[in-house]
Amino acid sequence: LKESMRESVQQDPPYVFVIFGASGDLARKKIYPTLWWLYRDDLLPKNVHFVGYARSDLTMEKIRDSFEKNAKVRDNEKDKFEAFLKQNTYIQGSYDKVESFKKLQEFNDDLQKRTKQPVNRLYYLALPPSVFAEVTQHLKEACMDYGDSWTRIIIEKPFGTDSDSSAELSKHLSSLFKEDQIYRIDHYLGKEMVQNLMTLRFGNRLFGPSWNRDHIASVVITFKEDFGTAGRAGYFDTSGIIRDVMQNHLMQVLTLLAMEKPVSLNAEDIRDEKVKVLKSMPPVELKDVIVGQYVANPDSAHPEAKAGYLDDKDVPNDSVTPTYCMAVLKVNNERWDGVPFIMKCGKGLDEKKSEVRIQFREVPGDIYAPGELKRTELVIRVAPNEAVYLKLMTKKPGMDFGVEESELDLSYNSRYHGVRLPDAYERLFLEVFMGSQINFVRSDELEHAWRVFTPLLQQLEKEKVKPVQYKFGGRGPVEADELSRKFGYIFTGTYKWKSPNKL
Amino acid sequence: LKESMRESVQQDPPYVFVIFGASGDLARKKIYPTLWWLYRDDLLPKNVHFVGYARSDLTMEKIRDSFEKNAKVRDNEKDKFEAFLKQNTYIQGSYDKVESFKKLQEFNDDLQKRTKQPVNRLYYLALPPSVFAEVTQHLKEACMDYGDSWTRIIIEKPFGTDSDSSAELSKHLSSLFKEDQIYRIDHYLGKEMVQNLMTLRFGNRLFGPSWNRDHIASVVITFKEDFGTAGRAGYFDTSGIIRDVMQNHLMQVLTLLAMEKPVSLNAEDIRDEKVKVLKSMPPVELKDVIVGQYVANPDSAHPEAKAGYLDDKDVPNDSVTPTYCMAVLKVNNERWDGVPFIMKCGKGLDEKKSEVRIQFREVPGDIYAPGELKRTELVIRVAPNEAVYLKLMTKKPGMDFGVEESELDLSYNSRYHGVRLPDAYERLFLEVFMGSQINFVRSDELEHAWRVFTPLLQQLEKEKVKPVQYKFGGRGPVEADELSRKFGYIFTGTYKWKSPNKL
Amino acid sequence: LKESMRESVQQDPPYVFVIFGASGDLARKKIYPTLWWLYRDDLLPKNVHFVGYARSDLTMEKIRDSFEKNAKVRDNEKDKFEAFLKQNTYIQGSYDKVESFKKLQEFNDDLQKRTKQPVNRLYYLALPPSVFAEVTQHLKEACMDYGDSWTRIIIEKPFGTDSDSSAELSKHLSSLFKEDQIYRIDHYLGKEMVQNLMTLRFGNRLFGPSWNRDHIASVVITFKEDFGTAGRAGYFDTSGIIRDVMQNHLMQVLTLLAMEKPVSLNAEDIRDEKVKVLKSMPPVELKDVIVGQYVANPDSAHPEAKAGYLDDKDVPNDSVTPTYCMAVLKVNNERWDGVPFIMKCGKGLDEKKSEVRIQFREVPGDIYAPGELKRTELVIRVAPNEAVYLKLMTKKPGMDFGVEESELDLSYNSRYHGVRLPDAYERLFLEVFMGSQINFVRSDELEHAWRVFTPLLQQLEKEKVKPVQYKFGGRGPVEADELSRKFGYIFTGTYKWKSPNKL
Amino acid sequence: LKESMRESVQQDPPYVFVIFGASGDLARKKIYPTLWWLYRDDLLPKNVHFVGYARSDLTMEKIRDSFEKNAKVRDNEKDKFEAFLKQNTYIQGSYDKVESFKKLQEFNDDLQKRTKQPVNRLYYLALPPSVFAEVTQHLKEACMDYGDSWTRIIIEKPFGTDSDSSAELSKHLSSLFKEDQIYRIDHYLGKEMVQNLMTLRFGNRLFGPSWNRDHIASVVITFKEDFGTAGRAGYFDTSGIIRDVMQNHLMQVLTLLAMEKPVSLNAEDIRDEKVKVLKSMPPVELKDVIVGQYVANPDSAHPEAKAGYLDDKDVPNDSVTPTYCMAVLKVNNERWDGVPFIMKCGKGLDEKKSEVRIQFREVPGDIYAPGELKRTELVIRVAPNEAVYLKLMTKKPGMDFGVEESELDLSYNSRYHGVRLPDAYERLFLEVFMGSQINFVRSDELEHAWRVFTPLLQQLEKEKVKPVQYKFGGRGPVEADELSRKFGYIFTGTYKWKSPNKL
Repeated sequence: LKESMRESVQQDPPYVFVIFGASGDLARKKIYPTLWWLYRDDLLPKNVHFVGYARSDLTMEKIRDSFEKNAKVRDNEKDKFEAFLKQNTYIQGSYDKVESFKKLQEFNDDLQKRTKQPVNRLYYLALPPSVFAEVTQHLKEACMDYGDSWTRIIIEKPFGTDSDSSAELSKHLSSLFKEDQIYRIDHYLGKEMVQNLMTLRFGNRLFGPSWNRDHIASVVITFKEDFGTAGRAGYFDTSGIIRDVMQNHLMQVLTLLAMEKPVSLNAEDIRDEKVKVLKSMPPVELKDVIVGQYVANPDSAHPEAKAGYLDDKDVPNDSVTPTYCMAVLKVNNERWDGVPFIMKCGKGLDEKKSEVRIQFREVPGDIYAPGELKRTELVIRVAPNEAVYLKLMTKKPGMDFGVEESELDLSYNSRYHGVRLPDAYERLFLEVFMGSQINFVRSDELEHAWRVFTPLLQQLEKEKVKPVQYKFGGRGPVEADELSRKFGYIFTGTYKWKSPNKL
Repeated sequence: LKESMRESVQQDPPYVFVIFGASGDLARKKIYPTLWWLYRDDLLPKNVHFVGYARSDLTMEKIRDSFEKNAKVRDNEKDKFEAFLKQNTYIQGSYDKVESFKKLQEFNDDLQKRTKQPVNRLYYLALPPSVFAEVTQHLKEACMDYGDSWTRIIIEKPFGTDSDSSAELSKHLSSLFKEDQIYRIDHYLGKEMVQNLMTLRFGNRLFGPSWNRDHIASVVITFKEDFGTAGRAGYFDTSGIIRDVMQNHLMQVLTLLAMEKPVSLNAEDIRDEKVKVLKSMPPVELKDVIVGQYVANPDSAHPEAKAGYLDDKDVPNDSVTPTYCMAVLKVNNERWDGVPFIMKCGKGLDEKKSEVRIQFREVPGDIYAPGELKRTELVIRVAPNEAVYLKLMTKKPGMDFGVEESELDLSYNSRYHGVRLPDAYERLFLEVFMGSQINFVRSDELEHAWRVFTPLLQQLEKEKVKPVQYKFGGRGPVEADELSRKFGYIFTGTYKWKSPNKL
Repeated sequence: LKESMRESVQQDPPYVFVIFGASGDLARKKIYPTLWWLYRDDLLPKNVHFVGYARSDLTMEKIRDSFEKNAKVRDNEKDKFEAFLKQNTYIQGSYDKVESFKKLQEFNDDLQKRTKQPVNRLYYLALPPSVFAEVTQHLKEACMDYGDSWTRIIIEKPFGTDSDSSAELSKHLSSLFKEDQIYRIDHYLGKEMVQNLMTLRFGNRLFGPSWNRDHIASVVITFKEDFGTAGRAGYFDTSGIIRDVMQNHLMQVLTLLAMEKPVSLNAEDIRDEKVKVLKSMPPVELKDVIVGQYVANPDSAHPEAKAGYLDDKDVPNDSVTPTYCMAVLKVNNERWDGVPFIMKCGKGLDEKKSEVRIQFREVPGDIYAPGELKRTELVIRVAPNEAVYLKLMTKKPGMDFGVEESELDLSYNSRYHGVRLPDAYERLFLEVFMGSQINFVRSDELEHAWRVFTPLLQQLEKEKVKPVQYKFGGRGPVEADELSRKFGYIFTGTYKWKSPNKL
Repeated sequence: LKESMRESVQQDPPYVFVIFGASGDLARKKIYPTLWWLYRDDLLPKNVHFVGYARSDLTMEKIRDSFEKNAKVRDNEKDKFEAFLKQNTYIQGSYDKVESFKKLQEFNDDLQKRTKQPVNRLYYLALPPSVFAEVTQHLKEACMDYGDSWTRIIIEKPFGTDSDSSAELSKHLSSLFKEDQIYRIDHYLGKEMVQNLMTLRFGNRLFGPSWNRDHIASVVITFKEDFGTAGRAGYFDTSGIIRDVMQNHLMQVLTLLAMEKPVSLNAEDIRDEKVKVLKSMPPVELKDVIVGQYVANPDSAHPEAKAGYLDDKDVPNDSVTPTYCMAVLKVNNERWDGVPFIMKCGKGLDEKKSEVRIQFREVPGDIYAPGELKRTELVIRVAPNEAVYLKLMTKKPGMDFGVEESELDLSYNSRYHGVRLPDAYERLFLEVFMGSQINFVRSDELEHAWRVFTPLLQQLEKEKVKPVQYKFGGRGPVEADELSRKFGYIFTGTYKWKSPNKL
C-alpha cells in the first residue's frame, strides 16, 4: 500500500490541510494525532503542510503541548515527530471576517510560488454549527483553488437536526461547492468491520443466495455503551441518542447491509445504491420504537452509575431526551419486504459492544427434535475486538448423537497479530487525500435518513413522550426485548461466544 | 448421554458380543480395545458378555496379553479392566462344523437360564471371505435368538470385489437374515466429521440455498496417506486403492454430501436418500480417471520411500494395481447436474489428510479487479485435526483498501479441549447395541456403489491399463491436477490454512 | 403409438382378460365398453380374449345387450364389433368354490394348447369387499400362470375403510401376490390432466424455481359435483365424501403436485417419491376441517334439489355422513413447510368442476397501488373442458396506464380439435397390458393415505360430529371460505376465466 | 381513464401544442392525425390549442388537406373534426430569426390575456438536425413560460450519430432546458407490449424467481421488416440499421427486460434502473456482430425484391451500410453475467415481426428421453398481433405417453375484441401532456447507449467492414444463425405458434 500511496499521492504538488477549530477538543484529541500517525507511516504526500486556524492567540508550541500526549510518540519516532511539526503552521483568524481567510489564501499562494506548483487544499471544519455558514461562505470567497488543483471541504456532524434544517444546510453547501468537493464525515464508515461489509457481501459467493427475505428472519444492529453522558450531558440533551447514533451511524450500517450490488466500486455507484435502499424505507413509527432513559443503579460499581440521566446538573428535570432507543425499520423492496431491521443503541448499559447480527430463519421441514435446532446467525462485531463469526449447529462432539451450537470464527486479534487496525479517522483522512468519496455521506443519503427519522423525532418532542426507565449498567429496557420478540427476533441465550484460542 | 445409555440400554437383559476371529490382528488392535473403552466409559449394558471365538487353542490370558497394550489402560482404571476381563470368555471352535457353533448357543442358553432373560446376540465377523459363507450359514442354523430377543450380525468389508460377487454375497446374506439384522461396517461412517455432515447440512439454514449446481463449482473428496502399503502389499495388490478406499469410504461421503434431505432421521429414510443419489450416478468412465502407482523417491527421508510399489517382494513385477486414483463422478439429478464430484485418494503422498472441499462458483457480475476474488470454499477436515472452515474474502485488515483471503474457522482441538473424539469403531459398536442402522451400509447402497465402479475396475484389469508413476512423498501424479482443472476445479494456492490460535 | 403398441404388445402370445362381476353395473357401464374401445382402436394385442365371470346364469348375448348401448358403436364399426364379441366368452361360476375357478384355468390351458404359447392373465375384480378375500385366494390356488408368462390382478376401491382394514387387506394380498402383480385402480390417475402434472412440472424449466414455499401461498385441489347421491345414497352413507373422493383421488393429485423429482420415470421411482411426500404429512386434524351435508333447496331447478341428503329414504335420519368436506393438509418438508394444501370436495354444489389451483404469494416490495396487483395463479382444470391457464397481471390494454388480470391459456378443446381425450379406464387398462404401474397405487401409498385420514374419520364417527348444512346447488358451506381464508387463500373474484376463442 | 383525464388534465388552464415542421411528412402522416385522435377521444384538456409552424406559406386549409386522409375521420365524427380544426392555427416563420418566434409567444400571451390563465406550452420539434440548435435557442430566448406554468420540449431522433455528437447535443439542450422539460421520443416505448413489459415482470410473482442467469439461457430481441428502404435509401444510407433500430428501440427493450425492480413507478426511479443496466454493459465487439446487406431476389414477388440495396440510385456503389444486424450484447451484473442478449434487426426479410423471446435453460437432471424436452420459451410479440405466450412441454394429448410442445397463450386480438390498441404516438403525446417522463429517454440513457455502440460503428465505418449479402425476402444471413448458436441459442423449429382460436 505504502508503495502505491507514494506513487499515487507523493507526487510533487503541495497539499495544505487546514484545521479550522485548531484550538478545540476534537483537534487536540483526534485531528492532530491522526495527522501525525498518517505522516509517521508515510501515507501522506511528501509536500504536505498543516495549518491550524482558530480565533485564539496560540502558537504551534502550545498546540503541540495540547496534543502531544494523545499522539503517543514512541522513542524511536522523536525525530520524525519534529519533522512533522516543521510542516505545521498556526494562523490566528476570525470566522466572521473574510479578511482573515485571505491570510490562508496567502499561505497557499506563497507555497505555490515557492514550489512552482498549484496547491491542493483540504479544509477540515471542526466547528460549531453557529459559525458554519459564514466560514464556508468565506472559504468560497477567498480560499478556493484556481482551477489547476483541487479544494476539498471536510465537515462533521451535526448535519442539521431534522429534515428541514438538514435541507437548508445542504442547500447552502450546494450553492457554494460541488458535491464532489464535499466530504461529510460519519466516522463509523471508517471502522474496519464496517468497511469490510461490502467485501463480505460482494466478494463471496456463499452469502448471496441467502441474503434476502426468504432466508433472513431479522437483522439486528447494535451499539451499546457501558458509560453515560460522561460530562457531555448538556450537549447530549439537545441531541439524544437517536440523532447521536441511530440516524447516522446505524443507518449507514443498515444501508451497507441492505443495498443491492452496485454497478462498480465507484463512490457514486455505491452511494446510488445506498440511496435506493433509503428510498424504500418508510418513516419509523412510534409504535415500532422503545425509548429509554437510564436511572441510577446503586448496585453498580461504575462511577457514573450513582446518578441517573436526569440527576445530571446539565439536564432539565423534565427532559425526555432518550439515552436508549430501539427502533424497528422496514425496507419495502423485493429483497427485504417483511424483514425487520432492529436498531438498538444506548448509554449506561451492561457492556460496550457494537455489532451486526443477521439471524436466519428456521430450517424448513425440520427433522430434528422440536427446539433442538437454533437459528443460524452471522455476526460482524465492529467493537470491541473485531470479529466475524457464524453461529451454527454441529453434531455434539464426542460419543453423542445430539446437536449443539458452535461457530465458525474469524477473530481479528487472534488471526492478525501484527496488524494494527487504524483509527477510523486515519482511514477517512487518507481517503480525502485520495479523493475517494465512498465512505462519505452524500446529500441525498442525508436527506432520506432524515426523512425516515424526522416524524418520530418531532412526535417524541411535541408529545413529550416519556422514555422508559432502565437501570444504569443493565441490558436496557425489557420493553425492548418484547418489541424485538414481536418482530420475530429470537434470543435463545443458549450460546455465548468464546474466543476459540483462549487456551 | 451416559444417562440415556443407561436408561435405554442398561436394562436387565443380557447381551453377548461374539468376536469371530478373536485371534486375529483386527481383534487385537481394534475390537478388544474398542470394547474395553466402551465398557470403561459405562456406555454398554450392564449384563454384557464378550466371547472370543477362533480356531486357535487360546486362553483369555493370551488374548489379554495380545491386546492389553493397545487398550491403553490407565493406572486408575486397572480394577475396571479386571472387571471387563471377567466378562470375557474364549471359545475354541472350527468355522466349518456346525457343532462348534452349538457351543456358542450353549453359552447363550446357559446365560439365559441363569438370568431368566432372553439373550441378545451380537456376532462380529472379523473373518476372511473364504470362511464367510459357512460361518453365516452355521450361525443361522445354530445360534439365532428364539424370537423374544434379537440377533445382529456385524460384518466387515470386502463386500465382494465387483457387482457380481457383491450381489452373490448379498443374496447369500438375505437368504439367511433380514436386512435389519445385518450391520455392514464402513468405519468411515463412524468418523466425527463424517457424522457431522448431515447436521451441518440439515441443521443450518445458511448452506441450504447454496447447496446446488447454481452455486457450487465442484466438490473434492480427498483421502491422502503419507505411507505406502506398510507391509500389506500382498493383500493390497489384489484389491487396489479404488476398492480399498474409493468405492466404499469416499462414496459414502459423497452420498452424504449429495443426498436430499430425508423425511426423518430414521435409518431407512436416510438410506433411501443415499440410494437415490447413487441411482442418479452413471458408471465412472476411464476418461474421467487417473490411476497412479508410486515409485521410489531417494530424496525422501520416509522409511518406505526407498522402494517403489513394484519393488515390494509381494507385488508382481507387472502389477497394474493403482496406489493412487482420481476419479470424476457425476450425479445427474436436478441438484447436481453438471457439478463434478472429484474423488482423490492415494498412498505414498506428501501428507496424511482426509477432507471434503466444496468449492463455490465465482461471484457473478464481479465488481472487483479481475482475479482479485478467489472462490469461496467450505472445507470439512476429517483427519487429522478435525475442523470445519470457510475460506472467504475479507477486506485486507489495516490501512488498506484491497481484499484478501481469510477464513471462518472451527478447529476441534482448539475449541473442544477437554472433549475426546472417540474412535470410529467405538461409535459404530455402540450403534449396533442401540440398533441404529444409520451408519451401516444397506445392500442396495452396496449394489449401486459397485454398479458405478465395476465397469472401470473391469476395464483397468482387462486392458491392464498402466498407472501413471509418481514419486513417493509428493503430491501425486500431475495428470490428476490437469484432470481436476479440466472439470473446473481451481487451485489457487494463494491461501494456506493456519491454526488461528497458534500464538 | 399404435405402431409401438403393435410391436410391444401385439406379439404372438395370447392374453386373457377376465372380468369378475361381469353381470354388474360397472361391467356394463365401464368395463365392456372400455375394452371395446381399446379393441376398436387396435390398441390391444391381437390374441386377446375376454372372459366374463359371474354367478348369474348368463350368455354373451345377454351381456352384449347389457353394454352395447354404452359402447356407442358407430355404423362403420359394426363388423369390428362382431369381431370383438367373438373374442368374448362367458363363464358362470361361484366365488366361494375353488372348483369354479378351475374352469377359468381350463380356459387358459386350452388356449395355451391351441396357441402353443403361454397365456398372460389379467384378472379384473369388480367385486364387493365381501367376496374379495375368497376370490383372490382361489385365483392364487387355481388360476396363476406357470412361470413362463404373467398374471396381473386389477382391483378397485374400496381398499379398506381405515388404516386397520386397509392394512389387513394389503397383508392378505401380499401373502398371495407380489406387489408387481397387483394393479390398484384409482381412476383419477387415468385423467388426461392428472397424467399431465408430471410433464408440466418436470418437463419445463419455468415452474421449478417457484414451486416451493418461498413462492407458493397455497394449493387448492377441488372436486365439485352438481348432483347429489343420485340414487346411491345407501352405499354413500356408509362411506362419505372423504373416503369416496378425498382420501384417494385428491390425495393422489396432492402427491403428484408435491413430490420431488423422481430419479427416473420408472414406476418404482415415482411411487417412492409419492410415498416420501405422504410420510411428511401429519394426520389431518378436525380443527382444519369443515364437513357439510346438503339440504333441500326449493329455489333450484335441479331435480335432486328438492330433497336434502337426510331426506333420502336410504339415509338414516341422524346420519352425520359428510357430503362435503374441506380439509387443510400439511406437508412438513423442506419444500412445503407452512404451505396449506386445501382440499375441497362435495356433492350438490353449484357446478361440476375438478381442478388444481396453485396460488402464488404476493409480489414482495410491491410498487403498484395497494390492492392493485392480484396473486398469480396457475390452474390445471381436470374437468370439464381440460385446460391449463396462468392468471397474471398485464397492463390494461389500450390507452390506459393501469394493470388488470388476464391469463395465458391452453384450453384443450380449442387447441386440440381432432384429438379425442380417452376415458381414464382406457388408459389404465392399456397400462396394465403394458405392465406400467406408474398410475396404480402401491400398498405403502395406501397405508400412508389412510394414516393421514383415519384419526379424523374415527373422530367424526365416534363423536358424531354434526356436519354444517348447505343448500343444494350453492357454493357449499360459508365456513369453508372462512377456513381457507384463515390459511391465507385469497379469493378475489375479480377475474373469471373466459374461453378466449368464443368470438 | 377518461374520467381521470378530465379531472387531472381538463382543468381550466390553456395548453398550446406547437408543431414545428408543420409542413413536413411526419406532421402530415403522424402528428396531426394523432392529435386529432386524442382530441376525438376526449383525452386532451379542454382548452387545448394547436399551432402549426413552418417556413412555408401555408394555411390551415392546406394543412387540413394534407392530413385529413390520414386522420380517418368517420362519418359520425365530422362535427368533432371541425371543432378540432377550430382549435388549430398556422403561423409562418423562419427558424433562424428570433423575431419569428416572438409571434409564437404573442399567440401564447394573447391566449393568456383572453383566458386570464397562464399557458402551458408543448413544443414538438419535427425538424432536421441542421436547424435544431437555432430553434431550441430561440425557443429559450423567446417562447418560455413565465414561471407560473410549464414548458415542455418534445424532440425526435436522431439524437446524434455517435457518442460525441450526442454528447454535444445533450450539452446544448441542458444549457437551455432542465432535464424535466425535455421529452425525447423513442416511439417504441409507446407500443402496447413494450409498455406491458414492466407489468409482466413486476406485477407477477411467477417470473421473478426465474428471471436471471441461473434459469435463462438467452434473450432474443427481434425486429424484422419485410420491406426494404422503401424510397428512403438516401437518408438510410447515412444512418444504417444499427442507428435506425438497434441502438435506440432495441436497447430500450433490452433495458426494460434486464433492469432491476425500481424503487417506485416514478420516471426517475425507472430511468435510474435503466441506466444502471446500461452501465453494466461493455461496448459491443465486432466479433459478436454480423452485419448484412440485402441483394435482389428474382424469385420473390415483392415489388422491392427486384433490386438489391446497392442497386438503389441513392446508395453509393461501395456503400457498406448494413441493412441487417445481429449483435450479441452482455450485461455484466449479478443477474445477467454470462447471458447473451441477442439483438436481431433487418430490412428485406421474410416477415414483419417484432418480438422478445426469453429462452430458458434445459431442465437439469432431465428424466425424459434425450432430446425429448425442448426449452421453455416466453415470447412477447410487439408486432404484428400483440401477444404473450409461453411455450412449454405437456403430455401429448390423447392415448399417448410421450410429451410435446404446446403453449399458454394470450393473443390480444382474440381476447380483447372491442379494445383498440392505440398508436405509440397517441400514448406518448398524452404522457407529455400529463408530464410523465417514464417512456422518454433521459440524457444519461442516451449517453450509455451510444457508449455501447459507438466503437462498433466507428470500426465498421473506418475499416469499411463489408456486410454479408442476403437475399431479399429470406431469413437473413446464415452467419447470424451460427452466431446465435455459438452463444447458446437453440432454434428447434419443432414448434410453430398457431392461433388457438382459428377454428
